[in-house]
Amino acid sequence: MSAPRDPRGGLFGALTAACGADWRAYVGHPFVRGLADGSLPERCFRHYLAQDYLFLLHYSRAWSLAVVKSDRLDDLRQSAALVDLLLNHEIALHVDFCGGWGLDETALAATPEAPANRLYTRYVMDRGLAGDLLDLLVALAPCGLGYAEIGRRLLADPATKREGNPYLPWIELYGGAEFQEGAAAMAAQLDRVAGRRGLTPPWDGSARWPSISDTFATAVRLEVGFWDMGLAPPA
Amino acid sequence: MSAPRDPRGGLFGALTAACGADWRAYVGHPFVRGLADGSLPERCFRHYLAQDYLFLLHYSRAWSLAVVKSDRLDDLRQSAALVDLLLNHEIALHVDFCGGWGLDETALAATPEAPANRLYTRYVMDRGLAGDLLDLLVALAPCGLGYAEIGRRLLADPATKREGNPYLPWIELYGGAEFQEGAAAMAAQLDRVAGRRGLTPPWDGSARWPSISDTFATAVRLEVGFWDMGLAPPA
Amino acid sequence: MSAPRDPRGGLFGALTAACGADWRAYVGHPFVRGLADGSLPERCFRHYLAQDYLFLLHYSRAWSLAVVKSDRLDDLRQSAALVDLLLNHEIALHVDFCGGWGLDETALAATPEAPANRLYTRYVMDRGLAGDLLDLLVALAPCGLGYAEIGRRLLADPATKREGNPYLPWIELYGGAEFQEGAAAMAAQLDRVAGRRGLTPPWDGSARWPSISDTFATAVRLEVGFWDMGLAPPA
Amino acid sequence: MSAPRDPRGGLFGALTAACGADWRAYVGHPFVRGLADGSLPERCFRHYLAQDYLFLLHYSRAWSLAVVKSDRLDDLRQSAALVDLLLNHEIALHVDFCGGWGLDETALAATPEAPANRLYTRYVMDRGLAGDLLDLLVALAPCGLGYAEIGRRLLADPATKREGNPYLPWIELYGGAEFQEGAAAMAAQLDRVAGRRGLTPPWDGSARWPSISDTFATAVRLEVGFWDMGLAPPA
Repeated sequence: MSAPRDPRGGLFGALTAACGADWRAYVGHPFVRGLADGSLPERCFRHYLAQDYLFLLHYSRAWSLAVVKSDRLDDLRQSAALVDLLLNHEIALHVDFCGGWGLDETALAATPEAPANRLYTRYVMDRGLAGDLLDLLVALAPCGLGYAEIGRRLLADPATKREGNPYLPWIELYGGAEFQEGAAAMAAQLDRVAGRRGLTPPWDGSARWPSISDTFATAVRLEVGFWDMGLAPPA
Repeated sequence: MSAPRDPRGGLFGALTAACGADWRAYVGHPFVRGLADGSLPERCFRHYLAQDYLFLLHYSRAWSLAVVKSDRLDDLRQSAALVDLLLNHEIALHVDFCGGWGLDETALAATPEAPANRLYTRYVMDRGLAGDLLDLLVALAPCGLGYAEIGRRLLADPATKREGNPYLPWIELYGGAEFQEGAAAMAAQLDRVAGRRGLTPPWDGSARWPSISDTFATAVRLEVGFWDMGLAPPA
Repeated sequence: MSAPRDPRGGLFGALTAACGADWRAYVGHPFVRGLADGSLPERCFRHYLAQDYLFLLHYSRAWSLAVVKSDRLDDLRQSAALVDLLLNHEIALHVDFCGGWGLDETALAATPEAPANRLYTRYVMDRGLAGDLLDLLVALAPCGLGYAEIGRRLLADPATKREGNPYLPWIELYGGAEFQEGAAAMAAQLDRVAGRRGLTPPWDGSARWPSISDTFATAVRLEVGFWDMGLAPPA
Repeated sequence: MSAPRDPRGGLFGALTAACGADWRAYVGHPFVRGLADGSLPERCFRHYLAQDYLFLLHYSRAWSLAVVKSDRLDDLRQSAALVDLLLNHEIALHVDFCGGWGLDETALAATPEAPANRLYTRYVMDRGLAGDLLDLLVALAPCGLGYAEIGRRLLADPATKREGNPYLPWIELYGGAEFQEGAAAMAAQLDRVAGRRGLTPPWDGSARWPSISDTFATAVRLEVGFWDMGLAPPA
């Protein structure tokens, strides 16, 4: 199988280009650099993992809202499969992974949701309630597509520490073929839905562009806030 | 004050033109002709009035969903004022009006919602949940703008029976300046929101047109079903 | 494996008992009797199958709304698995099944949604938007649990025609172990959610009972309307 | 007219009692004390005012969602009147008030929404989408009822600085009869809806209590975050 196409063409490429500084602050965040060179303090990573568990539940709800808002069989199917994958497979993997870091599921479920965590998912839900499927997918895009970009970059970067880096499994997960293919499918869905919902190239000439690019940039900044949160574990 | 502009230019005009036969079936329905010449059986009108009371409650909920889905102060304000007008003024007028036909509010509230009534408002709510503000406004348009067209036509038509027509107050309400101005404001909002949400002339060249025109035509057929229901009161 | 427990205990049992005449009109509908003795005209069944294809899409959206409205991992998982099953497996089976009756997927997707079909799913969606997870599950219950009861009864009834009955595969599907187990899981979820959402036995002493039992009875009547629709195929 | 009853009886009283420390942190926040003695830095108040303008828009959307989720005429009417009051009257007053502090509406509308501001309203919206009318009203309660308590306390407290306190108009607004009556109506609605939705005294014996009291306590902490934000204006 050939390598998945870089999803940064199409609408996703235009959106990241339009919020360049925010995007770079997200994908090149100190938290990410700490994963790459293994210098991230363990308690930061554990804090992040526990929040990410809670995040996955609401992220799954948001993708379910995408099913609610779909009217084509391909969109219904793609989002439904993702929701099932997240809730009935990924969360179990996440729990296993957390177990390796000394966090059991009871501890995960009892973790108070941090404001920066809650803010991102609830913002996404509200974009979905207020807008259409495109608004929702654009608010969701920084997460799936951003993690794919981070994973791909770190995995391709010879400077990434391999030996003795406790975060290598994280990098391999998001940089791996399965996640990359999922991200490519998400980017393709974004373009497909944009085309049907009146957002077409040249993107920034479209009436929907100001609102769509604002949603994306806002969501990117909320992802930056999520990394910031990771660096500030409770005492 | 000058007469309000016919709202059938702009998007609304394009939508009615695109579903011409359905639109004519709606605004020229036998129920409407029975109002015009006074021949509508009284029990049909009473059945219609009782269902219309229930309709107003859900129609108000749908316009509240429009507030939920608005992001501009002008849209927020316009829909909020309409919801308040409907619930805190129009319903009281409707109840008074029904009183004149021998229906009190307890009887109105106890009326079972007819399928054709329920179908229209729930379809509208779902278009709002699934789509964006434009999808919702387009699903709502046949009601407000259609009643305005019916009222305006009947009032302007010399063949409309005036003397001794018990339905003249109904015609005067929907043909009157206040309702016409409200409808003109609705049509203007439709054009304004369409422009921001990526639906621009030439309408039928827009990627959103197939879905938008389908929503409108469907809602028009559900309005036809509402008139049909009026002609078939329970025994 | 032991046979699944009859799901008519618990809340579901109370709800069916409370709307006995409507429930009997649903599960003993002439359409159902025509399936049992094989006398249902083929064009009625084909009409039903085409509408059921469209139904499945919106039914899946409604179960996705249940995911959106869930806050426990067990509920999130159960509804997400069902949505994925419906969209990524059941619809394909349904399309295969329809193929055996001469209906291909293009024809299915192009079928206009009949009013009685649209009415049920949009009513369910609105109960979900207006209410909580329990209101939504109760509106959904007549479908899954009713089909399970119909299938189980017909399969257990010696009077059901087996040989030469073209509808036997339909009966075997809904009466079969897999569907019965799914229905038992649904009934168990209903009781579990009711308990958390303030509806507890004695059911009819609960403040939520009037609204919940009205939702259920309304949905049952809309299912009756769905069967009625099946008996009235377009000319 | 007699003074409005303290709304802290009923469900609201139980909710505030159950999260006592959080509630005290909210109504006795340093920001509030700075309003009371006039010591709050002007740039903090201006920052707060600009954020509060944006807050009002989303708060109005949340109350519109309450209309969407209502099924009784009294609830529909009360929430609709509040939304209209907020959008078509209060915001204009707020803009006037801000004008006196040197902030014009263009500046207000161009203010970036602070995370703590966005977090509260989007959390409320999501409680409304996920839950029922009661979940939504409980998430909304800390705002209206908390401001009423703060205003009433400060106005009644002889230690509150009157002469030369630039924040006295703010205190008089929220401590004044009109706002107090609105708050009393909100508290009454909360009890009324709780009764219908299966949450009855003794509150903490109800199956819904853990979730309801968690929603309230969370919203109170988000209000504390809103005050914290006020004390940390951008440089």
